[in-house]
Amino acid sequence: MSPKKDKISMSVIRRLPRYYRFLSGLERKGVHRISSRELSDLMGLTASQIRQDLNCFGGFGQQGFGYTVSGLKAEIGSILGLDKQYKTILLGAGNLGRAVAAHIAFENQGFHLVGIFDQDPALFGRTFRGIQVQPEIELEEFCRREKPDVAILCVPMDAAEKMGERLIALGIRNFWNFTHYDFTVTHPDVIIENVHMNDSLMTLCYRIHHHNDGK
Amino acid sequence: MSPKKDKISMSVIRRLPRYYRFLSGLERKGVHRISSRELSDLMGLTASQIRQDLNCFGGFGQQGFGYTVSGLKAEIGSILGLDKQYKTILLGAGNLGRAVAAHIAFENQGFHLVGIFDQDPALFGRTFRGIQVQPEIELEEFCRREKPDVAILCVPMDAAEKMGERLIALGIRNFWNFTHYDFTVTHPDVIIENVHMNDSLMTLCYRIHHHNDGK
Repeated sequence: MSPKKDKISMSVIRRLPRYYRFLSGLERKGVHRISSRELSDLMGLTASQIRQDLNCFGGFGQQGFGYTVSGLKAEIGSILGLDKQYKTILLGAGNLGRAVAAHIAFENQGFHLVGIFDQDPALFGRTFRGIQVQPEIELEEFCRREKPDVAILCVPMDAAEKMGERLIALGIRNFWNFTHYDFTVTHPDVIIENVHMNDSLMTLCYRIHHHNDGK
Repeated sequence: MSPKKDKISMSVIRRLPRYYRFLSGLERKGVHRISSRELSDLMGLTASQIRQDLNCFGGFGQQGFGYTVSGLKAEIGSILGLDKQYKTILLGAGNLGRAVAAHIAFENQGFHLVGIFDQDPALFGRTFRGIQVQPEIELEEFCRREKPDVAILCVPMDAAEKMGERLIALGIRNFWNFTHYDFTVTHPDVIIENVHMNDSLMTLCYRIHHHNDGK
């Protein structure tokens, strides 16, 4: 399945995981086939939006027939690259890091956790999801040997900038970033997917605040 | 400071936390004043975008003078409602729940954690961020007494839907949702801010996959 358009907008791309998530839910419920109308009601999009989105990737389904849930899910999974196994390291084995490690191991889509690093000696040698926590000082040696593709940043705020630069110097070009530190602008050549929890929390605060004011 | 426009678009609103984050960083570095040009270089936005965004809220700063970092940060914080103290409960005291509790306690902006609930007896009575974990069965009684404003959902996937409905029945209308379960569409009257970690991870997967393919 090759994309129909060369340049897919980020807003379409960001909807693909949502399709995948809803289709997975339908599959778990034993639904075999769904019309774009039913899918749109479920997801809160218009049916025409759904057809447009899926047409970007060459289109699926047939007029009047709808989509096969497992087939569409598999196609979207393949477009997303979920069948890949990118070697992934985790920096920071605190609560957030451990939650993320569990998530990666459970989902097992696209990413394969190969190393966990922390600077707290109390954590060295402890095992999370089958991976032993290593001292951060062994990062250089590990990266030379294992050549990981992706780094997940779950380090404290004051360590984030230094760690980001250190990993880029080690040749890592793909990041899942949970820290406040935003290096998207300073490193346009690097792929950085940010999960800024605090941005989300502040947005929630705004929405409650202004909803309650009747604004 | 009252908004100039009645209806602010979600895309502007979602940029406000980003401004707040960058301004906090500048404040920590001791920067007192910044031009829209400098702020735009730092954030990867255009200067005109920044002026437009801030004009939605009545505008700040003066032509040729720039913005006072701490002043602009305080104004944006006030627009976001970060000076509020919404009573907040956390559902699920696993690694993710604990990371979120730490985050809320540390940031202390807008939200005040008043209760933590889990269904695992091994966690009952354990204290995170000064709050004892209570059995989920006490949720109804607690909500009647404390009337929390906000619930944070960090429960496992298969418990999410039931817990969401239970909390809505208990009168909670504001959610910070970390689960796969998406009740935005079924409950349009409820404010739900989703942090779908897996959507972000799949987006990263797509970006790596298609970057590596040269697409």
